[in-house]
Amino acid sequence: MKNVITISRQYGSGGREIGKKLADKLGIPFYDNELINLAAKESGFCASVFENAENKATNSLLYSIAMGMNAYGNQELGFTNLSLDDRIYLAQSDVIRKVAQKGPCVIVGRCADYVLKDTPGVINVFIWADIDFRIKRVMESDNLTEAKVIERIQKIDKGRANYYNYHSSEKWGRAENYHLSLRSDFIGIDSCADCIKSYIEYANNK
Amino acid sequence: MKNVITISRQYGSGGREIGKKLADKLGIPFYDNELINLAAKESGFCASVFENAENKATNSLLYSIAMGMNAYGNQELGFTNLSLDDRIYLAQSDVIRKVAQKGPCVIVGRCADYVLKDTPGVINVFIWADIDFRIKRVMESDNLTEAKVIERIQKIDKGRANYYNYHSSEKWGRAENYHLSLRSDFIGIDSCADCIKSYIEYANNK
Repeated sequence: MKNVITISRQYGSGGREIGKKLADKLGIPFYDNELINLAAKESGFCASVFENAENKATNSLLYSIAMGMNAYGNQELGFTNLSLDDRIYLAQSDVIRKVAQKGPCVIVGRCADYVLKDTPGVINVFIWADIDFRIKRVMESDNLTEAKVIERIQKIDKGRANYYNYHSSEKWGRAENYHLSLRSDFIGIDSCADCIKSYIEYANNK
Repeated sequence: MKNVITISRQYGSGGREIGKKLADKLGIPFYDNELINLAAKESGFCASVFENAENKATNSLLYSIAMGMNAYGNQELGFTNLSLDDRIYLAQSDVIRKVAQKGPCVIVGRCADYVLKDTPGVINVFIWADIDFRIKRVMESDNLTEAKVIERIQKIDKGRANYYNYHSSEKWGRAENYHLSLRSDFIGIDSCADCIKSYIEYANNK
């Protein structure tokens, strides 16, 4: 059964909402902030340390320097020489693997597609949308001015891309990293969830 | 109505076959090599000159040099200072615009998504597939050894990427260039055509 779904998404594209709707339609768990809290509990870190891990990586060079290149080579030796961010990533990855092992679920963000790349039964989805749609959505949900929203979208997407590119050595938003990529504003949030559900059914019936 | 569908595809991914099936399901024309011949007739060029235009661009730097950077700035002055390849591209683009104006259709390759980027009612699709699936497909269809097929896939995909990146100033295979991107081997050729058809219906019913 191919029923572990990871969703990567541009900020404001509705990716999180699509993931939630999909999980509801399939009757399976949805992991987003819950995942952060789970990770926090498992590792003994404070939850607030985790919350911005994915979004704060706004400069790829500085991020790489801060994280220490090739730090993962030390993973098997325990946490020696790993930065706090690396340790958070490893703890999150551990949780992602555990929830995926438990059974079908939807996981949003946190490089889950890359963390689970060798796990059978995983389907990776990318959601993007027209910039005007994203600006409108974030202005409405967060009650911010257009200028503030544009700044926030650029900052958060840059952070997500750097976080993904650093941890995965792949390119965020490259079609080949995902089984299915969708432009959400063109068909709507609900239809995206239906579209992903159809793809899962096609994969399971193949 | 959103019924002009462009399909970009990795070599061997089944993108052309998916496009043909989709056109049949929708009862609309399908343009691939026919497009080349149409372009040849319209421009007065010999058809054979056109046939390899998309696939031969195997080195991006050499390609850019050969094509002459910023050559398009001269488009309005007629064909002065344009290379043969530029003239072929412009003639093809002209045909793509004309067939899209005529009505619903499926167009495979030739940067059609970029050529039609300001045309309302266009849906852009990208098809990719696992490398083993592609190798097997090409070995079977062209009766070649695995080594020859791998070489051909690398060469043709590099050519398609360079052709697209040069003409569009965008990145081939970036999810954000396409409304819908699909991994074809995971659900099968038929299901891909159905999946695209559903996306079109969702877009038209929105």
